[in-house]
Amino acid sequence: MKTEVAIIGGGPSGLLLSQLLNRAGVETVILERSTREHVLSRIRAGILEFGAVRMLREAGVADRLDREAIPHDGCFLTDEDLMVRIDFKKLTGQHVTVYGQTEVTQDLYKAQDVMGTTILHEVSDVTIHDLDQATSHVDFTHEGERKRLDCLFVAGCDGFHGVSRKTIPEGKRREHERVYPFGWLGLLSETPPCNDELIYANSPRGFALASMRNENLSRYYVQVPLTDKVEAWSDDAFWAELKRRLPFETAERMVTGPSMEKSIAPLRSFVAEPMRWGNLFLVGDAAHIVPPTGAKGLNLAASDVHYLHAALIDAVKSGDRSGIDTYSERALMRVWKAMRFSWQMTMMLHRFEGEDSFAAQMRKATLQHLSQSETARRELAENYIGLPY
Amino acid sequence: MKTEVAIIGGGPSGLLLSQLLNRAGVETVILERSTREHVLSRIRAGILEFGAVRMLREAGVADRLDREAIPHDGCFLTDEDLMVRIDFKKLTGQHVTVYGQTEVTQDLYKAQDVMGTTILHEVSDVTIHDLDQATSHVDFTHEGERKRLDCLFVAGCDGFHGVSRKTIPEGKRREHERVYPFGWLGLLSETPPCNDELIYANSPRGFALASMRNENLSRYYVQVPLTDKVEAWSDDAFWAELKRRLPFETAERMVTGPSMEKSIAPLRSFVAEPMRWGNLFLVGDAAHIVPPTGAKGLNLAASDVHYLHAALIDAVKSGDRSGIDTYSERALMRVWKAMRFSWQMTMMLHRFEGEDSFAAQMRKATLQHLSQSETARRELAENYIGLPY
Repeated sequence: MKTEVAIIGGGPSGLLLSQLLNRAGVETVILERSTREHVLSRIRAGILEFGAVRMLREAGVADRLDREAIPHDGCFLTDEDLMVRIDFKKLTGQHVTVYGQTEVTQDLYKAQDVMGTTILHEVSDVTIHDLDQATSHVDFTHEGERKRLDCLFVAGCDGFHGVSRKTIPEGKRREHERVYPFGWLGLLSETPPCNDELIYANSPRGFALASMRNENLSRYYVQVPLTDKVEAWSDDAFWAELKRRLPFETAERMVTGPSMEKSIAPLRSFVAEPMRWGNLFLVGDAAHIVPPTGAKGLNLAASDVHYLHAALIDAVKSGDRSGIDTYSERALMRVWKAMRFSWQMTMMLHRFEGEDSFAAQMRKATLQHLSQSETARRELAENYIGLPY
Repeated sequence: MKTEVAIIGGGPSGLLLSQLLNRAGVETVILERSTREHVLSRIRAGILEFGAVRMLREAGVADRLDREAIPHDGCFLTDEDLMVRIDFKKLTGQHVTVYGQTEVTQDLYKAQDVMGTTILHEVSDVTIHDLDQATSHVDFTHEGERKRLDCLFVAGCDGFHGVSRKTIPEGKRREHERVYPFGWLGLLSETPPCNDELIYANSPRGFALASMRNENLSRYYVQVPLTDKVEAWSDDAFWAELKRRLPFETAERMVTGPSMEKSIAPLRSFVAEPMRWGNLFLVGDAAHIVPPTGAKGLNLAASDVHYLHAALIDAVKSGDRSGIDTYSERALMRVWKAMRFSWQMTMMLHRFEGEDSFAAQMRKATLQHLSQSETARRELAENYIGLPY
């Protein structure tokens, strides 16, 4: 088999990259480890930066999004004393868009099917070769057979546990990591959201987030110790704890219901450098992980795709390699800034086991300052809606 | 002896409070532990917020300041790759003022002498009594005799180690503290400053600060382990280390000379709540300590004096107690925000022993973000020039 860009990973970043490349006349083949059903069953992020939405429009996959997605002009930050609204619209002229990652992925699969792109599922034992040669190849097992895909470039969109990053020799990559000493217990339920906009709550009992996927699908989170088991959390216990951490009026009007999904996710900041190794380019979670505070995960994958698709089109179509030569540096510049924002939001909103009272006071002072300084709110808003590419 | 407001501590905050009260016709007596010479020999901060300067003008003690002080329209933040200017003037319309704390104190003593205020020096064994009564009294030893000062109110301007804070019963005050695992080795020298504006340098070898008192008096600092002894640092070793941490061009033009003073100061964040106990009001270091990063120490004392002098004038002159009843809350609101800023500046600019690479990357990303975001620079500038009272 032969193609111009081999894409490892059929999640949203691989699919979006493929779609943008195909539309510019660049050929791709996508290799995905799981079934399509499995990819579409993963519950992930729900907030899109305006830049990510713009790219989905450019990719021609935003028709349903433009009909169904909910624009959010602001969000709330709270503690036991204060409730501060960050007015994205007023502060930046932009909004963010509530539209589940699952929906984005579905729209992308549909568009790629129309495009006729080869997407191989249940691919295993992927190995990547000849990255320092004019052409490279990816070997893999599919339908019981060992196969080879020749290509000019490889896009590693295969997530944190994928093979792409590990293909860069250990001595040649630097990894930076921060593991946070808690997780998020998330619950999805078919109930109307308790608030029109997201509420990030810094409570003395720990963090909580009230978010949503649509008008009848709520997504809530509470900070839990990493030692907690999801089985030990009944739906009732979850709702009770959630209500204790949200502002009283919000808790009062909360509609509860059975969980459709409930899971504990650890929080981690992770960056691998460089994001390019010869003909291989890392995209999204393959190169970096953010804690979910601030909703940057999918959006960072989209900004990687933004830089990479243009660079690959230039390289394939006109032999101009300047874009691919600077991809790692440009992508990382934005990655680090989103890392900083996600880390700061995480530190500002969570209780840390064993922390001193000064730490808790710093969180209160930050919210107090936000409540009084328009500049501080604008700084947060500009990061939340997405820094310029 | 009898007065309206007994002021414990004859440093800049006690003197400024006294001067402002006296000008409004409120009587004061100042009790100071040391000699005037000793108070005037202490090398302290050198940057005044515009609000502090405005108060010194109101107090009628700014003639020399207005002639000699140097306005600074900006400062620099650097690391090994970037040099970012924070343009206070452009971002906020304000500047800060370079004028040593020692000079402020000198001007205040002169003004208080003209005013004829009783300032007792070398006072010891101060105890404060009857704070919950209509009138209180301060007992102390002076010139070998035990004396008593009757008063309506007591202002505790006697610093971190003073008696005032400790007079509030232990169970009735909350203390919040963060001790940083390093100190600042400072050197004062009669040399022209290496740069017109301050340079805050985050170097891989640790923090350095290039600052000044006037055009021929430089004040430099380098971050050192707390285990370092000042005796082990020769002037030559200091200059060599300083140059390694500053931008190359700055180090190149550095004029070195013998030290006039050299000392190591630990870095600490500390707040005691409440700042009022009956007729006692804490001011400045008696209630709170900031790390010097961001130059908030003297300025926070000045903002306490701002709230307190107006409140005391109202209480003494017209029996209106609303100002003194809300003093602690209003002063602390601003204290916590300055605490937050100083803590953030400290975290952003210092190397922490044993830190992971992620921490260093967060510092780099913060500077990178500052270099690219005017809003981020404005947020820093607004805090640096001083949040509104």
